[in-house]
Amino acid sequence: MKITPLKGTRDILPSEQRIRDFVQNTILETYKNNGFERISTPILEDIENLNKSEGGDNLNLIFKVLKRGEKLNTVLTNKTIQEKDLTDIGLRYDLTLPLTRFFAANKDKLQYPFKVIQTDKVFRAERPQKGRLREFTQCDIDIFGDDSPNAEIELINITAQALLNIGFDNFIININDRKILRDIFKNMGFAEESLDTVCISFDKMDKIGTEGIIEELKEKHLPENAIDNFIKFISENLTLDSIASKCSDLTAVNKLKYIISTIEKVAKEKYKIKYSPCLVRGQGYYTDTIFEIESQFFSGAIGGGGRYNSLTNKFIGQQIPAVGFSIGFERLCNILLENNYEIPKSKEKCALLYDDSIDFSQVLLAAEELKKEYNIAIIRKNKKPGPQYNMLENQGYTKFATFKDEQVILK
Amino acid sequence: MKITPLKGTRDILPSEQRIRDFVQNTILETYKNNGFERISTPILEDIENLNKSEGGDNLNLIFKVLKRGEKLNTVLTNKTIQEKDLTDIGLRYDLTLPLTRFFAANKDKLQYPFKVIQTDKVFRAERPQKGRLREFTQCDIDIFGDDSPNAEIELINITAQALLNIGFDNFIININDRKILRDIFKNMGFAEESLDTVCISFDKMDKIGTEGIIEELKEKHLPENAIDNFIKFISENLTLDSIASKCSDLTAVNKLKYIISTIEKVAKEKYKIKYSPCLVRGQGYYTDTIFEIESQFFSGAIGGGGRYNSLTNKFIGQQIPAVGFSIGFERLCNILLENNYEIPKSKEKCALLYDDSIDFSQVLLAAEELKKEYNIAIIRKNKKPGPQYNMLENQGYTKFATFKDEQVILK
Repeated sequence: MKITPLKGTRDILPSEQRIRDFVQNTILETYKNNGFERISTPILEDIENLNKSEGGDNLNLIFKVLKRGEKLNTVLTNKTIQEKDLTDIGLRYDLTLPLTRFFAANKDKLQYPFKVIQTDKVFRAERPQKGRLREFTQCDIDIFGDDSPNAEIELINITAQALLNIGFDNFIININDRKILRDIFKNMGFAEESLDTVCISFDKMDKIGTEGIIEELKEKHLPENAIDNFIKFISENLTLDSIASKCSDLTAVNKLKYIISTIEKVAKEKYKIKYSPCLVRGQGYYTDTIFEIESQFFSGAIGGGGRYNSLTNKFIGQQIPAVGFSIGFERLCNILLENNYEIPKSKEKCALLYDDSIDFSQVLLAAEELKKEYNIAIIRKNKKPGPQYNMLENQGYTKFATFKDEQVILK
Repeated sequence: MKITPLKGTRDILPSEQRIRDFVQNTILETYKNNGFERISTPILEDIENLNKSEGGDNLNLIFKVLKRGEKLNTVLTNKTIQEKDLTDIGLRYDLTLPLTRFFAANKDKLQYPFKVIQTDKVFRAERPQKGRLREFTQCDIDIFGDDSPNAEIELINITAQALLNIGFDNFIININDRKILRDIFKNMGFAEESLDTVCISFDKMDKIGTEGIIEELKEKHLPENAIDNFIKFISENLTLDSIASKCSDLTAVNKLKYIISTIEKVAKEKYKIKYSPCLVRGQGYYTDTIFEIESQFFSGAIGGGGRYNSLTNKFIGQQIPAVGFSIGFERLCNILLENNYEIPKSKEKCALLYDDSIDFSQVLLAAEELKKEYNIAIIRKNKKPGPQYNMLENQGYTKFATFKDEQVILK
């Protein structure tokens, strides 16, 4: 049998798990202390729901589960078999789609605005490579039922607090609005119906560069003069004020100005927020504001999100405003590990050493007492105690309890 | 798009999630305070590993993941397609198999004995019915590298402590040893090579009853006189002392006596431990002791485990003693919910109400202050505040902060 985990998945050893647990708990506590409530949704999701979900490129990365029993046997007797006949369930590729389904299913039982936490695993069949996992954890907060920019401000403020509480600082929140992008693309000469495809190409800046994007736009047979305007646009150094002159509608620009100035007041220079005219984000479901967390320690984003005001429409035929912010938990933990992150001190580690001269129930009862003050581990004494003490010290044990005449001696 | 979760999976609403989080944290803290270390393994596992894993009936319940891209296309062009050609990955059905693989892969990096925690999701393609989930959480502790019965005692003691710390008591630990079962089955007249199949049938007592088991044994063409002896055995009221007279080797009986008497000394009558001659457990990989938690609130077990000394053999060709205990997290939480369980008090809930007359950055800064003492939620004031206050009170808010002349008033 194979002993290594599957490509694109990882075993987590105790030393790393301790950091992950601390980070996870700190994020969760920050969210909960700010009036957000945690929910859970299943990893298994209806394959049709996933396929219709406007997840952009992620739709090509869905792990599909084989049908079972009679359902499968029936398909296998077909003359020609297509992939879609073989599967009825998929593994979710993000937490937003299941959350929107959850909201649609439970909306009468929730308080409004619904401020919600999800932190759990998602799956993407990426080509395995360094830094790209196929099974990974995300930490999301979302607000349903609030279309004011205060919702964006709360999400950014609380996500930033979570990072600061871990001890992670000096990050930048980059922010943009899809409405601004659509507005200026339209004014460049792209047709209304091609605006989404321009956004999708534009998002690949990191992967294929300016040249690649221009090539893609040409392949899509979009108007040449519009592409020329686009080239000019991405070479400019634009501010919110200079972009305003290119917009037909200033609502989105003013909204960004309000969000940025409010965050600047509460951030107290512990982190920055910046208008980023080239920020697009991959998912098809974003309708308005989009944001990402940039860190000097990582070339990609370590978190991101945005407003998706029309996704509920697909479930209940009704638009409920929604906005979310997701922390890239794996990337964050990787950065902390690479920087030799240390968890703020918890209980001291104490090893309770015993041999068979002492009744084991006595050992357990002694451990129960010591546990009030220490993180206690019951360990059988080796014949040669010297090397064992050294090994335990290396594992972080600072206190040692032994038995002498049935009494516990603590050193 | 479908709004309900897939059959056999569940959405967890905030009120239930709060209890789950509390139970999960209490279990984890108990384990960690006793020197156990948490690790994680992937949900995605090599399908061959799963198929060869001696998981008993669970092997028929594996969710299989469809191959992707070229690999799949090649299969689809075959004239006849078999299920096994279509899949390369499965979702784990328990935490023990991935843990054993983890141990095999990382054994040189671990401390010995390796005392380990895993708590995560597992998947079984059960026929959907009440109380049977297809996606559920388990909480396991295991010890690798300790073949003394003190390992069993530690697991039972700590698992019991975890339950007591939640406030769950009056349970019974039932214990048996597969070696005793094999010994007496052999003395009944069953052949060595049929002992496992007798155990597997015997485990179905709950599902098919005594009659069903006898029928199964007959269908398996086992010796009639052995089956007669078996019928006599299950009708007897056996104690450890009376079973001893039927055993050829008393090692296992004495081991059980030692475990039971030691646990009785530390349990201080908060829970019970009982020899259970008919306890078998389903998994094929158990070699020695097996145990289950019985509660008056649930007809099945709410936890169980045992020793699996030969599973590492399949990965590294070497037997490392191993024993584990798993809490059935879903069943435990269900029992707590049905009994209107209440979490011990945490921070008081405070609603910070605002309207647009106040700068939103002021609201955020006020929240930051209040958060030191309260669990705070920022909420926009309704035009009619009366009903809003009532609603918030119903949601458990006991403090209300408002602004007057830019000052925060707390009521």
